[in-house]
Amino acid sequence: MFIAVDGGDGAGKSAQIAYLTNWLRNRGRQVAFFRDPGDTPLGDALREILLARKDLAICSEAETALFMAARAQLVRDKIRPALAIGQTVLVDRFLLSTAVYQGYAVDGDAETIWRLGTHLTGGLLPDVTFVLDCPTDVAFGRINRSRDRIESKGADFHRRVRDGFLRAVDDWKRLGVPGKVFVVDATQTPEEVSATIVERLQDEAPELADA
Amino acid sequence: MFIAVDGGDGAGKSAQIAYLTNWLRNRGRQVAFFRDPGDTPLGDALREILLARKDLAICSEAETALFMAARAQLVRDKIRPALAIGQTVLVDRFLLSTAVYQGYAVDGDAETIWRLGTHLTGGLLPDVTFVLDCPTDVAFGRINRSRDRIESKGADFHRRVRDGFLRAVDDWKRLGVPGKVFVVDATQTPEEVSATIVERLQDEAPELADA
Repeated sequence: MFIAVDGGDGAGKSAQIAYLTNWLRNRGRQVAFFRDPGDTPLGDALREILLARKDLAICSEAETALFMAARAQLVRDKIRPALAIGQTVLVDRFLLSTAVYQGYAVDGDAETIWRLGTHLTGGLLPDVTFVLDCPTDVAFGRINRSRDRIESKGADFHRRVRDGFLRAVDDWKRLGVPGKVFVVDATQTPEEVSATIVERLQDEAPELADA
Repeated sequence: MFIAVDGGDGAGKSAQIAYLTNWLRNRGRQVAFFRDPGDTPLGDALREILLARKDLAICSEAETALFMAARAQLVRDKIRPALAIGQTVLVDRFLLSTAVYQGYAVDGDAETIWRLGTHLTGGLLPDVTFVLDCPTDVAFGRINRSRDRIESKGADFHRRVRDGFLRAVDDWKRLGVPGKVFVVDATQTPEEVSATIVERLQDEAPELADA
């Protein structure tokens, strides 16, 4: 099973991923966790370019292609091998983030991003995606560390990101994106968010409840 | 006018580009020359990753996306602005190279590469592309410097590259690629190759002969 946790910056992805990893492991699952972009030597080099190098001019189309390059390598070297040996794969972001940050949020062509992105992962997409949804002001209050290149884009951009995730979820079926997607209200307490995610996951894959 | 010179490694692109630049300048044209990938800060960073870092595992899909990222930035920051002020743009490689090296030569999906690539340049493709064609053995004998990551892929790969360029040119119209493409026999002397290129160019754009 391939599960993605996605959503705007500051929505609480890391905490939910940590919870979900433990929850799955407690049920005897082997969990392989990856962050996208990252977790391959190429992915780390591109993560540096995409997030850390605030001096570098990167247009939206280039950004799209760079995220896709990192993801292609991650799928090839890490995600497919983990799935092949029966591990449960959990990712922090996936193609949905590219569709939102480089598509919906900047009036880019989200449909083409889905199409290209699916081609470059060889057709592999998560079985289930959880979108943590949270008003931008609340989310921004939660980012205590220094902001990376994309987090630094300002509140207007991040409001478009939040709207973008909701529009992407609305468009999901119309665009023929495979897999299920659930929006989770991330203004709840972390415990409530976790409970919601686990409940949905058990509905989708009842065998996960066998502990 | 937007002109690309493309072809396998060692086919003599650099010499022909130098000749063509002078020929155009002698006819009063302002020539802007760029190499793809490269010639933007992002392009240079990616060129380093793509060509110099032989240690880095890069799958074919990731390679495709990285070349496209560099090209998107080059189009946005350099090629479109140069065309907008009436300069003649000359490029060393363009999307055709990606279609060949990451498509035809590795049994990749060249049609999708054309489609994605055109999307990521915002639809901009060269008006005229010259493909310098040369048997691999002859071409390899010409590379005197140390080989980069892609040049190091071996003679079999480079034979598939040569075939790939010829197949790409055959497919040009069927795939609906805009612009004209000419294959030039690069086993001729450099002077003969230059004469052929200039003749074709004058056929395409008779106003270029006004010196």
